[in-house]
Amino acid sequence: MWMSKEISVAVIGYGYWGPNLLRNFQEADGIRVAVCCDQDPQRLARAKTRSPGVEVTTNFRDVLSHSGVDAVAIATPVHTHYDLAMQALQAGKHVLVEKPMTNRVDHAQELIELARKKGLVLMVDHVFVYSPPVVKMKEIIESGKLGSLYYIDSVRINLGLFQHDINVVWDLAPHDLSIVDYLLGRLPRSLATVGSVHADHDVEDVAYLNMDFGEGLLANFHVNWLSPVKVRHMIIGGSEQSLIYNDLENSEKIKVFNRGIAVATGTEQRRQVLISYRSGDVWSPKLSTEEPLARMTAHFASCIQEGSRPVTDGESGLRVVKILEAAQRSIKAQGGRVVL
Amino acid sequence: MWMSKEISVAVIGYGYWGPNLLRNFQEADGIRVAVCCDQDPQRLARAKTRSPGVEVTTNFRDVLSHSGVDAVAIATPVHTHYDLAMQALQAGKHVLVEKPMTNRVDHAQELIELARKKGLVLMVDHVFVYSPPVVKMKEIIESGKLGSLYYIDSVRINLGLFQHDINVVWDLAPHDLSIVDYLLGRLPRSLATVGSVHADHDVEDVAYLNMDFGEGLLANFHVNWLSPVKVRHMIIGGSEQSLIYNDLENSEKIKVFNRGIAVATGTEQRRQVLISYRSGDVWSPKLSTEEPLARMTAHFASCIQEGSRPVTDGESGLRVVKILEAAQRSIKAQGGRVVL
Amino acid sequence: MWMSKEISVAVIGYGYWGPNLLRNFQEADGIRVAVCCDQDPQRLARAKTRSPGVEVTTNFRDVLSHSGVDAVAIATPVHTHYDLAMQALQAGKHVLVEKPMTNRVDHAQELIELARKKGLVLMVDHVFVYSPPVVKMKEIIESGKLGSLYYIDSVRINLGLFQHDINVVWDLAPHDLSIVDYLLGRLPRSLATVGSVHADHDVEDVAYLNMDFGEGLLANFHVNWLSPVKVRHMIIGGSEQSLIYNDLENSEKIKVFNRGIAVATGTEQRRQVLISYRSGDVWSPKLSTEEPLARMTAHFASCIQEGSRPVTDGESGLRVVKILEAAQRSIKAQGGRVVL
Amino acid sequence: MWMSKEISVAVIGYGYWGPNLLRNFQEADGIRVAVCCDQDPQRLARAKTRSPGVEVTTNFRDVLSHSGVDAVAIATPVHTHYDLAMQALQAGKHVLVEKPMTNRVDHAQELIELARKKGLVLMVDHVFVYSPPVVKMKEIIESGKLGSLYYIDSVRINLGLFQHDINVVWDLAPHDLSIVDYLLGRLPRSLATVGSVHADHDVEDVAYLNMDFGEGLLANFHVNWLSPVKVRHMIIGGSEQSLIYNDLENSEKIKVFNRGIAVATGTEQRRQVLISYRSGDVWSPKLSTEEPLARMTAHFASCIQEGSRPVTDGESGLRVVKILEAAQRSIKAQGGRVVL
Repeated sequence: MWMSKEISVAVIGYGYWGPNLLRNFQEADGIRVAVCCDQDPQRLARAKTRSPGVEVTTNFRDVLSHSGVDAVAIATPVHTHYDLAMQALQAGKHVLVEKPMTNRVDHAQELIELARKKGLVLMVDHVFVYSPPVVKMKEIIESGKLGSLYYIDSVRINLGLFQHDINVVWDLAPHDLSIVDYLLGRLPRSLATVGSVHADHDVEDVAYLNMDFGEGLLANFHVNWLSPVKVRHMIIGGSEQSLIYNDLENSEKIKVFNRGIAVATGTEQRRQVLISYRSGDVWSPKLSTEEPLARMTAHFASCIQEGSRPVTDGESGLRVVKILEAAQRSIKAQGGRVVL
Repeated sequence: MWMSKEISVAVIGYGYWGPNLLRNFQEADGIRVAVCCDQDPQRLARAKTRSPGVEVTTNFRDVLSHSGVDAVAIATPVHTHYDLAMQALQAGKHVLVEKPMTNRVDHAQELIELARKKGLVLMVDHVFVYSPPVVKMKEIIESGKLGSLYYIDSVRINLGLFQHDINVVWDLAPHDLSIVDYLLGRLPRSLATVGSVHADHDVEDVAYLNMDFGEGLLANFHVNWLSPVKVRHMIIGGSEQSLIYNDLENSEKIKVFNRGIAVATGTEQRRQVLISYRSGDVWSPKLSTEEPLARMTAHFASCIQEGSRPVTDGESGLRVVKILEAAQRSIKAQGGRVVL
Repeated sequence: MWMSKEISVAVIGYGYWGPNLLRNFQEADGIRVAVCCDQDPQRLARAKTRSPGVEVTTNFRDVLSHSGVDAVAIATPVHTHYDLAMQALQAGKHVLVEKPMTNRVDHAQELIELARKKGLVLMVDHVFVYSPPVVKMKEIIESGKLGSLYYIDSVRINLGLFQHDINVVWDLAPHDLSIVDYLLGRLPRSLATVGSVHADHDVEDVAYLNMDFGEGLLANFHVNWLSPVKVRHMIIGGSEQSLIYNDLENSEKIKVFNRGIAVATGTEQRRQVLISYRSGDVWSPKLSTEEPLARMTAHFASCIQEGSRPVTDGESGLRVVKILEAAQRSIKAQGGRVVL
Repeated sequence: MWMSKEISVAVIGYGYWGPNLLRNFQEADGIRVAVCCDQDPQRLARAKTRSPGVEVTTNFRDVLSHSGVDAVAIATPVHTHYDLAMQALQAGKHVLVEKPMTNRVDHAQELIELARKKGLVLMVDHVFVYSPPVVKMKEIIESGKLGSLYYIDSVRINLGLFQHDINVVWDLAPHDLSIVDYLLGRLPRSLATVGSVHADHDVEDVAYLNMDFGEGLLANFHVNWLSPVKVRHMIIGGSEQSLIYNDLENSEKIKVFNRGIAVATGTEQRRQVLISYRSGDVWSPKLSTEEPLARMTAHFASCIQEGSRPVTDGESGLRVVKILEAAQRSIKAQGGRVVL
């Protein structure tokens, strides 16, 4: 194989997620970290200690003008994503941006448009999409094994880290929304969201998002920063089989249940007779042991090298932002339904 | 102690729940089963074999005119509750009626009014209210240990028995609604309910009820007949501590978590500083081993003997029916919020 | 099909287990309960109330001389099994006897011999052998799916009912020993058992039985009356796959794990290279919902009618008693190994 | 406070555990890593990349003669512990040695003796002893809350990493033996161990260690490299309360059960009456979130600075080796009991 040129990336933001990105880029083939940028010199000192070969700077313009930098990975607070990504694209850099992509739908659309014009890769860090159980769920759904999808019930709750610039919906739901976006590849028709505020003056800490995906598919998401226990659980009910994804389970993260109801149609018998119950085996598939973040960083590098479209492209990031924005409108409207 | 006269009861309906009622009445002190009434002679034959001393009849009028019958326990389909209970009260019999009390709010109100006029006991079989974990939850909440209540999250799902006259909301939610009614003793201010129809032409089999109880308390109920696994789970989050009730857990059905957030107020520090996290012990209280149904039947007998008001009186039955009726309206309005 | 004559059975002992036997015989086809015998008139009164059609007596001789009785089911304390079963066989009655079959090996042998001479059915109530998960385990093992068996690890612990005539080994281990006897169909070569005495002066309440079944198969049984939690758990490790049986699990009592080690042989490579790890799917088979006791009573009836040998015949009962007696000797010898 | 001189440590062995030790020493106060020594230059290259400031060498003598090295931390295979520790002590270095301390009792005794003579710290890396749940268990047992200890049941099983120089007893049991040694502070009176060999020609992969600690305390340890599931579980049963330690549980690693049996004595009533059952609350104490390895490395530094005796001193390491050596003798004697 012809050896592609090694991609050189700058990591922007060295707070909670940045160090993970940096480490994974360093261990990925075909990509290397050239620069780490953060406004806080203490963080940069930490980066320098751990990764002596990486240049550090507090000035984002240094990155933009750095001819050795092909791409930037943005791991800063949400409200800064648009500006930083915009400048990076304008400077001709490929962009990986932390989720949620932006805090406004129009901003996400602008980024997509600019990347398209410039022929640059724009990828969103929907990291769960690269995790083995989610990849397996996609494979199972696409195999048709579950039949028609009836409902998705998602719970992501724990005693959470309060953030003051965003509420629990913007903080936790992007994980589950990006998973469901990957599985279904489409927006819901409408949603209604209720949230309540307890600990802080105007930041929701408990919320329920209810979505109608059409064709009889209902999806409900519970996100909560005040739960005494940690739960990461998703049920996907289908006409043939159903699936449970428990991300906190050690050895059986995915279980497929050959259980359901059987509905006979087209006869003249009484309806009672037509519905019966099926109970069958439970199957928990072997999962790959690959690290999601390692797969994600490798995918970014290969999309740049091959000029291909990422699985979690700007469009998927945009769909998640559309849902978040609609959820926010619904919360303000006391849970009124919003059509997407 | 002066020995009260033994109460004589007729069990109406010998299908799924009737045999349990009959057996528990037989084993309760102060009450005995005189008659068992069902339209199906086969069921009556079964009752006769199991309980040779009980009279059986297919004619409800025999019960009404039976001078030896003080009370009736109605365990028939929901749509028959009102008629049977009405006739029984008119005939001067005390009434225990299966949940939900009626399928219309005005019917429940009429029954309450008639029982009041006649000075008869009208009790609803909210059997979970008599179960040791629910009694313990009430005690914990009333002790103030949890602080202000922030949210209630309830899940009652399984591969369910389809019923064609009622949907999953009317079938499963009364359990949780009666529990929450007992704990809070008040109606929600408003609710929104979404449901979806899959297996049957017009019966919802998956639904979410979302209620605003005011004072920052949000409650959400997931009921589902299509789940591959059985879950009976309730989280009650409070400002001080939180509680989890898992009815399928063998030895620790109730757990109280001394975990939460601490919000300081009245200082000039920045908001970020004011919210901190507390993590403490988990405590699972010893529960009584009494049978809920035995406690419930004994309570019915003692209310009749002492002329006292049942814990699960007509008013509590009415509140549950009000919520169910509002939920039904909300489903028809595509999840629109309904004020109670 | 030609209708066999209905078998008439007498239930001896109406304490803890007798009522279950009686009820199941009554509901089984081809068999009916004629007599219930117990030394305690109060228990007989309870039997009479619940089953008005059954004759009751405190005198076992009435049963022996009762010409309408074809078989007896003995559910009395262990030390009485031999005498009662002996007399019943001598009187020409078929015998079902509670486990453990006897408290002495020679007694079990005498019963087998007498039943053989008289041509009567002698069956031991190893009820777990008739339970769906155990039947499924047998099927899986016989399919060869697990490969060679490497080890069996069994845990049966709870806060137990103390019995003063027998220790925890004689009380709890017969369940697991009868299961393993059914699965393997052979005795261990040797065993060592340690027990300790805490609550009572000379009755062991915690014990470990360790058995060597030959061919590399080690089995260990933990039985305990002092455990704060209830556990009913068995792992069966094989060269190809392994199996876990959790009798307290609601919906996945049996799980088969396609995981293990792969050992290559016959090469010249270093040993380190020869052992590798395999990880595959987990599979939980659908289980029948039949009641073990109903299957057991029906099997007794059909063995009598067809003159066939029960699955849990006298020989299987004898093997379990041999192990128990050897375990007792080992305990007395401070855990010394006893060859069987 | 007077600032103690910073301790300088050399990490010997940079395989599985060495990198963890190195990282924790680097982050501990009062101690720094001067040298990393391994026979494999590739491993040293990795160490150099991750920790550019650390000297590396393949020659242990460089460490011994290095005047700037106060202490060594030995994380090499068991059979090398004695030689390396001996040389280090002779060269006047304090020693932290991976568990098990040595593979022979006399070797452990020699190390203790030499360290005593030289006045050097000799500490064994029984890392679980520094973990919050184990510290809490010690505190609970010393409070007397459990009463007299009746039994300890320990299970540590998984699909394990085969090692060819040591069997499953030497690999896994030191964890549990060091925990129990810390809790009890004494040797068992006797033990019996059975093991079986499946995958490899002469290395046991499944074993049970049974120990008599006297005073009615029985302890049993199941260690297993062939289990399809991972279990890390210990029950400690006491006369008053019992405790369960589940190291794989996320939020309730320790549970204390106020359940047990109550034995009355000194009356003339029948024995049956004297034993009754108590059932009470379950309590799961809050645990510290400190990292065990960080606490262990800090403890090593402070023992050197203050000249104090480590919690996991040579004597505790010796007791564990005594048990392992006795277990090995018992395995060779087909499970015969060995007196310690």
